[in-house]
Amino acid sequence: MSTPENRQFKLISRPVGMVQRSNFEFAPAPAGTPGPGEVLVRVQYLSLDPAMRGWMNEGRSYIAPVGIGEVMRSGGIGRVVASNDPSLAVGDTVVGMTGVQDYAVAKAKEMMKVDPRLAPLPRFLGALGMPGLTAYFGLLDIGQPKEGETVLVSAASGAVGAVVGQIAKIKGCRAVGIAGGPDKCRYLTEELGFDAAVDYKSEDVRAALARHCPKGIDIYFDNVGGEILDAALSMLARRARVIICGAISQYNHPEAIQGPRNYLSLLINNALMEGFVVFHYAARYAEGMQALAGWAMAGKLKAREDVVDGLETFPDTLQKLFRGENFGKLVLKVANE
Amino acid sequence: MSTPENRQFKLISRPVGMVQRSNFEFAPAPAGTPGPGEVLVRVQYLSLDPAMRGWMNEGRSYIAPVGIGEVMRSGGIGRVVASNDPSLAVGDTVVGMTGVQDYAVAKAKEMMKVDPRLAPLPRFLGALGMPGLTAYFGLLDIGQPKEGETVLVSAASGAVGAVVGQIAKIKGCRAVGIAGGPDKCRYLTEELGFDAAVDYKSEDVRAALARHCPKGIDIYFDNVGGEILDAALSMLARRARVIICGAISQYNHPEAIQGPRNYLSLLINNALMEGFVVFHYAARYAEGMQALAGWAMAGKLKAREDVVDGLETFPDTLQKLFRGENFGKLVLKVANE
Repeated sequence: MSTPENRQFKLISRPVGMVQRSNFEFAPAPAGTPGPGEVLVRVQYLSLDPAMRGWMNEGRSYIAPVGIGEVMRSGGIGRVVASNDPSLAVGDTVVGMTGVQDYAVAKAKEMMKVDPRLAPLPRFLGALGMPGLTAYFGLLDIGQPKEGETVLVSAASGAVGAVVGQIAKIKGCRAVGIAGGPDKCRYLTEELGFDAAVDYKSEDVRAALARHCPKGIDIYFDNVGGEILDAALSMLARRARVIICGAISQYNHPEAIQGPRNYLSLLINNALMEGFVVFHYAARYAEGMQALAGWAMAGKLKAREDVVDGLETFPDTLQKLFRGENFGKLVLKVANE
Repeated sequence: MSTPENRQFKLISRPVGMVQRSNFEFAPAPAGTPGPGEVLVRVQYLSLDPAMRGWMNEGRSYIAPVGIGEVMRSGGIGRVVASNDPSLAVGDTVVGMTGVQDYAVAKAKEMMKVDPRLAPLPRFLGALGMPGLTAYFGLLDIGQPKEGETVLVSAASGAVGAVVGQIAKIKGCRAVGIAGGPDKCRYLTEELGFDAAVDYKSEDVRAALARHCPKGIDIYFDNVGGEILDAALSMLARRARVIICGAISQYNHPEAIQGPRNYLSLLINNALMEGFVVFHYAARYAEGMQALAGWAMAGKLKAREDVVDGLETFPDTLQKLFRGENFGKLVLKVANE
């Protein structure tokens, strides 16, 4: 077979503060040929996630940083166009780490085959993908929600937060979401079934939380860090669980992370704060996927994607994520389905 | 009976920053007479604890603040000199919340009778008292130490820390302590059996921790907060447990608490941070006391008290605690035994 032209975003410098277009080189490269056990995937959509910012930093983390000169790491969904492994056939739709490029050579065993008739493709990067699994394991495994408890989630209209709130409702909890702007807040209460929404851009968050969480916060699922984490800590119920999933407010100034000043609320409330990354639950992905798909099928798990067109827009679209301008799971459309 | 003369320290203003003598009034008052179910206790030793600083602040906590004009709250040990309850007799030695005064009228059921022949009286305010129980429940219940794990404790030569390290050794762990100055560090390794000690006053704490905790920190028992908490967070092992027991470095500037900047280490290591106050374990005090007394009897639990003489020195002696100048459990001697 002939090798199609591939375009790639390579990381050429580590960002200081906000990620910039100049941190990347966008250039053509051969798509490559799959070796034994590998497939060639035509990428259709890429997943743009807050975690990407962390992958660009040097230093020890749960995963090695993207090396200088390497293709930027990214999750993606696409179609197999050449296979050198019996487990996947040309035409299969697969999800996995494709990198920010048109074509990815990947190990077949690291790609997950999905049924494209079940949902729009971008959803497999959101509610039915890693963000959905992140919500599922974080809320259920660490949070252990009990009926009647109050669950608060930040970045609540985002890919993870929207699933957290809906699972909280499924489990009989009171779900309160924090999001930016009236449209996102209306979406939470009117479409996703949250009991209340707090607009951090226009409301006094502490006052609003006091109003919407009259018995205190039993579970806080934190995606943002900073002032909102502190506000939530100030209102914990006894034996509360704070789930640290992310800190998008802090990622673009890693040299000056703001620690939670109210962490001693853990002490006076016998409360815990636990962090996690979803990769640690890899052995249980199948369980999570099954549950999420079941709820989606039953109409209990709704989702919304914010699709931006064009691989070439990658750095600007990623900035949009850190400015909180996306509404729903942010995905980059790379090729027509 | 005639009422003996009593001297009391009453809180007359809330401290801003470091506690001052001017926050108290020291004046004589009648000792009072025990009503039904009460006893009159001649206080012999008072327990001076970091938590006292928190009790002086206004606002919601695990316990109501000391009111303006009230006798300053304090644990103490003393002898019953008058009893109006069949459960305690004149001459009994009891431990409980006596307040900072010579004589306390107390409910008999809130005082715990101890056998003064088992240990020097001040020890019932330290390793065999609330600090010992704090170490016991915090380390074992939250920390769940497993053989071979590395346990780090700050304020390690203090009342709680010294017990934490010794229980860690009893459980087969590697015990590393952080303390201020060569004498305290030598005490940890040479007398208490810690595997290593870090002198935060003269060493680079991060470099020392890297040396002494080569496999990372599985359990960090934090009594201090601030920079040392951040250093420990930067070196957590996977699935580490951080126990928030106190934050003595932060108590005297409650308006500007320094949150743990490295809290995202919880995320990348799937680690947890849990706070507690020992009062929540009241139902299990007997279990803890029995274990501590058993270890003490077997020579596995050593202790040291720093005894300062004279009720009148209370505010200055309390300052000594916050300056880290005490060596061992700080107690105030109020009367001869």
